[in-house]
Amino acid sequence: MDRENRVSITVIRRLPKYYRYLGELLKKGINRISSQELSKLTGFTASQIRQDLNNFGGFGQQGYGYNVEELRNQLGKILGLDRTYKTIIAGAGNLGQAVANYRGFEEAGFKILAMFDKNPKLIGLKIRDIEIKDVDEMENFIRENNIDIGIITTPKESAQDVADIFMRSGIRGIWNFAPADLKVDDKVIIENVHLNESLFTLSYFLKNESDYVRD
Amino acid sequence: MDRENRVSITVIRRLPKYYRYLGELLKKGINRISSQELSKLTGFTASQIRQDLNNFGGFGQQGYGYNVEELRNQLGKILGLDRTYKTIIAGAGNLGQAVANYRGFEEAGFKILAMFDKNPKLIGLKIRDIEIKDVDEMENFIRENNIDIGIITTPKESAQDVADIFMRSGIRGIWNFAPADLKVDDKVIIENVHLNESLFTLSYFLKNESDYVRD
Repeated sequence: MDRENRVSITVIRRLPKYYRYLGELLKKGINRISSQELSKLTGFTASQIRQDLNNFGGFGQQGYGYNVEELRNQLGKILGLDRTYKTIIAGAGNLGQAVANYRGFEEAGFKILAMFDKNPKLIGLKIRDIEIKDVDEMENFIRENNIDIGIITTPKESAQDVADIFMRSGIRGIWNFAPADLKVDDKVIIENVHLNESLFTLSYFLKNESDYVRD
Repeated sequence: MDRENRVSITVIRRLPKYYRYLGELLKKGINRISSQELSKLTGFTASQIRQDLNNFGGFGQQGYGYNVEELRNQLGKILGLDRTYKTIIAGAGNLGQAVANYRGFEEAGFKILAMFDKNPKLIGLKIRDIEIKDVDEMENFIRENNIDIGIITTPKESAQDVADIFMRSGIRGIWNFAPADLKVDDKVIIENVHLNESLFTLSYFLKNESDYVRD
């Protein structure tokens, strides 16, 4: 995709939602769907859905709609889900364990190879079949196993140190749960899950209006 | 705020970030900041920051900038953080425990009064001082304690049932971590944390471009 032809981040953030809904339709044995029906499911307007998908070449046929399996496969490719990713988790507390325990990530191709912590009580334990190792071994482990994605579930105070280790050992993607904005090289992709910000958005709407139409 | 004069959700989602940065500045003893300096910190442009804040009346003074403490207090009020909220957590697995253990929520005024689960091995345990109770007691507990916000950290399969209990017992806000789009009454505010969607956004950028400028 060239710079002139970039798809907005807002559109990109809707793609995983389409992908999830299409997966649910497939499970129900539904093979064909119109943008109107997709609209009812997703809450986006039919014209927005058509516009979103047209960014990637459009996949529907006039009068037929979308082939659910084909559209899902195409979206999966666009989202980079047509391959597997080797990941590790830094921070083996509750949040790290919750991420390690969530089967959905592995099903989608994100394999967790190890977890790391500095707490001696945690080192050596296993979450499912994933071992918690000493954080001192992390840098070597990343290099030796060509880890693609590093997940940060440490407290805020350790997050930048972890990100620095990730960067110098060649990790290209960081999924950060720590409530901090980390400084990373331009070539590293970082995706933040800032839970406080999500919670405060909820309290904003609770305070300000209960009939706000969200987008 | 009337319907004609609504602030876009994109702006609202930036407010918690400003709020967090201002809190960090205050801790460092910085009492005054220009939109240019805020821009360097947050990564948003100075004109965007001024525009965002002007939606709520603007708080800066030409040639002076913003008073950090005052701006933070005002944003806190706008975000509904000038009061406390009574919350409960449904689902006391790793994710529920991670949320319960996170001190930041309580500091911001979100008090967790109880957790609920159906697993007999968990019922009766405590996370910090928060008791895990039988989910059968949840509906009464919500009514008796006037719970404001219900947090869903159950598996996907139980999430709608939990949301239904929340709604009929009078909860106004739902913070949902289950990978499902829940059907709720119009008067209930729901804020989703869809981790899969965040992860797939990361893989999209890993696949498509590493120099994409995010917004």
